[in-house]
Amino acid sequence: MVALIYWPFIQGRGEFVRLLLEDAGAEYDDVARRPEEEGGGIAAVRGHMYGEGPGPAGFAPPFLIDGDVKLAQMPAVCAYLAPRLGCVPDDEAARMRALQLQLTIADMVDEAHDTHHPVSTARYFEDQKAEAIEAARDFREQRLPKWLGFFERTLERAGGDYLLGSEPSYPDLGLFQLVAGLRYALPRAAEAALGATPRVVALHDRVAARPALAAYLASERRIPFNEDGIFRHYPELDG
Amino acid sequence: MVALIYWPFIQGRGEFVRLLLEDAGAEYDDVARRPEEEGGGIAAVRGHMYGEGPGPAGFAPPFLIDGDVKLAQMPAVCAYLAPRLGCVPDDEAARMRALQLQLTIADMVDEAHDTHHPVSTARYFEDQKAEAIEAARDFREQRLPKWLGFFERTLERAGGDYLLGSEPSYPDLGLFQLVAGLRYALPRAAEAALGATPRVVALHDRVAARPALAAYLASERRIPFNEDGIFRHYPELDG
Repeated sequence: MVALIYWPFIQGRGEFVRLLLEDAGAEYDDVARRPEEEGGGIAAVRGHMYGEGPGPAGFAPPFLIDGDVKLAQMPAVCAYLAPRLGCVPDDEAARMRALQLQLTIADMVDEAHDTHHPVSTARYFEDQKAEAIEAARDFREQRLPKWLGFFERTLERAGGDYLLGSEPSYPDLGLFQLVAGLRYALPRAAEAALGATPRVVALHDRVAARPALAAYLASERRIPFNEDGIFRHYPELDG
Repeated sequence: MVALIYWPFIQGRGEFVRLLLEDAGAEYDDVARRPEEEGGGIAAVRGHMYGEGPGPAGFAPPFLIDGDVKLAQMPAVCAYLAPRLGCVPDDEAARMRALQLQLTIADMVDEAHDTHHPVSTARYFEDQKAEAIEAARDFREQRLPKWLGFFERTLERAGGDYLLGSEPSYPDLGLFQLVAGLRYALPRAAEAALGATPRVVALHDRVAARPALAAYLASERRIPFNEDGIFRHYPELDG
């Protein structure tokens, strides 16, 4: 059984890994969500971070432990798990294409985060609110339609129901999570942009309806979106 | 022969791919650096970008074409090329570890870029200079020592001359490029931070002395750092 180590109070980048595991019905040890007296909590995460725990450590969570393999970086963890969980095709070109798409999703996640922390991750939102309002405007007006348009066009060209064509793969789960997060953080801007990308919306709905995922999303294992995570709902950033 | 397609006037993210090819002595078609009348220039890049060219396209360059395989996203392109060029070990755990490290380098590249464009990539530096000065301060004082410290510790724990141990792999080339870029952009801050990370400095020097790379770095194929790239030298951001 693999172990996932991620901040226990947010979805964050760990959620992109959790979705693979949940969709496949895999058992996994969500270490930091155990009670503190059973080795969970923030201390479990810090123990694997740079400079604080036994090596090989990563700069930041999510961390995956699978026997002797310890890995960090969300797209690398997904690329490692996907063949084991059956959520990527066997051939190398498709695997690389899946990695490319997950990296593109990760880039958009970063940009969505930076709308509320444009100056520094070390400062509170309230201390960079004026800059965040400017950053969010450019994100809403320029980046959001451009990014979603890329995925719309990718789906159109793939010629099937999924990003890689006829079969689902892990970037489909990633795009679902991106849409869900954008709808939470910037509901007005997200709906406006998604109005122009019906294939992206249909993919989101198709993924959300997968039985194992639907059960997960309705469970207490799915941490609600909140204002400590990547996708934060600050109404002043939604135009 | 593979084709690399990247903006012809900057090192940018394409340089991380070029270093793999150059170090291995591979022949490659650096498409956009051909004269425009021979299919080069910006038009060559735009032809592969989202919405503008034939699929499967990527959101942004670098793009790699290898026969039927078309790929985007720098870390994915490196992960694809590395086994073919002999710059990553054969076993899967080492390949995933290399990908993790390259992704961590890519994250630091993003942060270095965002110091001069904290609010929006769509606006000029001059229009976000006050915010950039604030962002650069936090980058210099907090992020730079933390990131370089991570690589120092990784080298220490690897127990050899390279990030994966005794054998060089492509993240070593990436870390070389990161150090070179930081020294160009923020010479004072970089020297101060690198003073605490002697293993990172030694790795940079070891990579720079590799014969094929030394020849490349001295050639006209190496585009000089400049203020259109990721690493820009704006003295006001260097403290």
